[in-house]
Amino acid sequence: MQWKPDRHSHLSLHIQIVDWMKTHIERGEWTVGTKLPPQRKLAELLGVNRSTIIDVLDELKADGLLEMKRGAGTFVSNNSWNVLLNKSQPDWHKHIQASIHKPNYHTIQLINEYEQDSCIIRLGTGELSPDLLPTKLLEQSLQSISLNARDIGYSEPKGSKRLRIILSDYLQKRGIHTSPESILIVSGALQALQLISVGLLEQQSIIFQEHPSYLNSVHPFQSAGMQMVSVKRNERLAETLKAGSGKKQSLFYTIPTLHNPTGSSLTPEERKRLLEICAELQIPIIEDDVYHELLFEESPPAMKSLDQTGQVLYVGSVSKTLSPGLRIGWVVAPEPVINRLADIKMQTDYGSSAFSQEIVAHWLSSGLYEEHVASLRQQLKGRSLFVESILNENFRRIATWEKSMGGFYIWLRFNEPVVNKALFLKLIKQKVLINPGYIYDPSDLHHIRLSYAYATLEELKEGLYILLNNI
Amino acid sequence: MQWKPDRHSHLSLHIQIVDWMKTHIERGEWTVGTKLPPQRKLAELLGVNRSTIIDVLDELKADGLLEMKRGAGTFVSNNSWNVLLNKSQPDWHKHIQASIHKPNYHTIQLINEYEQDSCIIRLGTGELSPDLLPTKLLEQSLQSISLNARDIGYSEPKGSKRLRIILSDYLQKRGIHTSPESILIVSGALQALQLISVGLLEQQSIIFQEHPSYLNSVHPFQSAGMQMVSVKRNERLAETLKAGSGKKQSLFYTIPTLHNPTGSSLTPEERKRLLEICAELQIPIIEDDVYHELLFEESPPAMKSLDQTGQVLYVGSVSKTLSPGLRIGWVVAPEPVINRLADIKMQTDYGSSAFSQEIVAHWLSSGLYEEHVASLRQQLKGRSLFVESILNENFRRIATWEKSMGGFYIWLRFNEPVVNKALFLKLIKQKVLINPGYIYDPSDLHHIRLSYAYATLEELKEGLYILLNNI
Ligand SMILES: Cc1ncc(COP(=O)(O)O)c(C=O)c1O
Ligand SMILES: Cc1ncc(COP(=O)(O)O)c(C=O)c1O
Repeated sequence: MQWKPDRHSHLSLHIQIVDWMKTHIERGEWTVGTKLPPQRKLAELLGVNRSTIIDVLDELKADGLLEMKRGAGTFVSNNSWNVLLNKSQPDWHKHIQASIHKPNYHTIQLINEYEQDSCIIRLGTGELSPDLLPTKLLEQSLQSISLNARDIGYSEPKGSKRLRIILSDYLQKRGIHTSPESILIVSGALQALQLISVGLLEQQSIIFQEHPSYLNSVHPFQSAGMQMVSVKRNERLAETLKAGSGKKQSLFYTIPTLHNPTGSSLTPEERKRLLEICAELQIPIIEDDVYHELLFEESPPAMKSLDQTGQVLYVGSVSKTLSPGLRIGWVVAPEPVINRLADIKMQTDYGSSAFSQEIVAHWLSSGLYEEHVASLRQQLKGRSLFVESILNENFRRIATWEKSMGGFYIWLRFNEPVVNKALFLKLIKQKVLINPGYIYDPSDLHHIRLSYAYATLEELKEGLYILLNNI
Repeated sequence: MQWKPDRHSHLSLHIQIVDWMKTHIERGEWTVGTKLPPQRKLAELLGVNRSTIIDVLDELKADGLLEMKRGAGTFVSNNSWNVLLNKSQPDWHKHIQASIHKPNYHTIQLINEYEQDSCIIRLGTGELSPDLLPTKLLEQSLQSISLNARDIGYSEPKGSKRLRIILSDYLQKRGIHTSPESILIVSGALQALQLISVGLLEQQSIIFQEHPSYLNSVHPFQSAGMQMVSVKRNERLAETLKAGSGKKQSLFYTIPTLHNPTGSSLTPEERKRLLEICAELQIPIIEDDVYHELLFEESPPAMKSLDQTGQVLYVGSVSKTLSPGLRIGWVVAPEPVINRLADIKMQTDYGSSAFSQEIVAHWLSSGLYEEHVASLRQQLKGRSLFVESILNENFRRIATWEKSMGGFYIWLRFNEPVVNKALFLKLIKQKVLINPGYIYDPSDLHHIRLSYAYATLEELKEGLYILLNNI
């Protein structure tokens, strides 16, 4: 045993030793049945009092990680949770692992892990930087919230009536005419996808997605056993969809405006064509429209606004514009579909936070939201120009990209297939985190998704410089 | 066509006609392909202008419920959603329907539906009455919330660190010693059960539940394909569990304190015995402890506080004490279990509302919560005495019950097996809604779950009177 707790740490000796033991047990380094040295010996090895060791062992016993066998000593225990965790991979996990390329999956786990590290430069994060969030204004606005006892009890299945009325008004501006009864409030756009997945589709249904796709980085459909089929933008759409769907249930997932990860938008003609073909083949469409308000210039019409047959399921959220912490999004669809989804939502979590719903209702109806989004667009535009100027100066010989039209992302394409897992890991060592293209398309080794929304300008500059030095 | 819109209604003609048509289509009364009368004819039949009819048809077309065939007229359309909704019952739905008695299931749907009706007297609702909620205090407390930009972005998988630290402190009072790393914040206790179900168990696992059980009225485990096995309180526990679990994964779900629906609590000895037997058989336990603070007298120890082997998964929530609209609950378990559940939580909805979490953190840490709960207990106690006095005066010859020890419920037992679906429906006609015992135990025709927490005192009196007249 080499390790000793650090007496100068701000953490107590107790906590340090507990952590150290837990880590060994959880990583499986001390396997079930491993015998620990006697207390006196442990105290000596770690250079602490025996009473500290006794406290530590007590805590780990209460946690079920250790057990005492009378007369024999202390052992890593063979408790029920250890057994459960080792034996069972839940179904969704099996499905995901079966359907997702391993390095892709592992890279995503590493991204999630390293995002917790406050020293890392995050070049790919799909989230507003803390200083782009209207934190103070949100805090002040809490004073304008007035609560009604009926609104803070268990909610109606579709969510706050007031918010749904305000949303049906707000959606008019997007050309979407709908009634509050056709709107479901959800805890973010991701939950919308999750509910659609378990509520409307059979296992083995086909999900058409764009190529590359956000859906390769989160797995609401894969985890329910759906088959993912990627459709390239220039492909012969009708033939591909006809061949792909066969006799199975299918559904087309699209981000027509400010696509994640590419940042591009479908033209109005492409939107119409997709609608027509899907209408003919009776393939419902999910339109994920979480970024549209961040377009620098005017927005093409929502597909839902062109929809004559009620075949588009429209998904929105305030995560990309106001605050992801609110966890508020919405789905617009024909009423029977909304009723079904609301039913499942109730079975899952009895509705979304009434407080978050009140806050969003207040921001939308007071005009605060619109004002904030207008200024946000300007700030994002400034950030995009900043990053583009760095790219223009340093990356022109080795990469290409399109000028950003809005949102968070630049889909940077390197001329050579250099964006592999080795590069990803090498950059982590230098405290730079990227979102490599292969998490959105496993066969892609050319792209990274650059986000100018999260890191500070200095970090963006430094991060891009480190990136350049590693290509 | 007999029906005509009501010109004296507060609803517009347009809305009335849309509603009427939708109802016919959704109930399947106008099946796919049904041809509607020509516009002029419809206008005449309903006694409205033709322009009103045109607007109505346009809305229903945009919703996908109607389609226009050129030259042929307007038809109930065969759109993709109709097809989806008719063909597919999602897997969870199949599981539930297979595992739940039909009248039970139908009664629950009716309860959910009639709870929306503000004229109905709710004798069974498991929720605090609007006037027991600290609405004004909650509203005022919003002014004390200070937000940090990092807290309103996407959250750490386990939820707000601040709230978890406060909770680990608060749980000490319940005798539970745990670290913030072993706590997961969830969107209410129901979501905790849902996450455990998909995250830790294989399909066909055995869930032991008490008899009767809250789990027969919500279906987090049934929907994932688990097998439910009911265990009577006086049964020979060790034998039953051994025989029931066989070689399968299994888990024991219990509400040891203020059980829903019976209101009873396990004695300290029963708790210890259950723990010992489950430890021996390696059956993890879920301790659902959402009501413990509502005990009128002192609480028996949490099973988690007696747990030496980390085998209890402890679930709490503020829904029964502060506000269900917050949607905040927590799970305490060994760290590897919490890590797994946190991972699934992120895949499901990227975390719970940061705003709700801040509010709960403020209430717990400022002492507001404790003060409120103390006064709430008094009010509930008063309500229980009120209902018991009515029962004593009027129900003694036909029913028995135990004096309430706390919480919301009295488990009223009629001497004769009179609590069937016919009684339930007869009462609805008289604007009284009950929770019959058979939704918690399909074979039970003796009980109703009486809740003194929701209706007003006058309503409780009137409702009980109507109930009495129908026995
Ligand atoms: C296209 C797209 N849809 C949905 C989401 C999830 O958004 P929410 O935070 O509303 O769940 C994201 C964010 O990562 C996204 O980029
Ligand atoms: C025993 C029990 N557990 C869990 C819940 C759900 O609580 P929450 O609102 O925290 O999801 C309830 C409420 O209906 C309950 O009675």
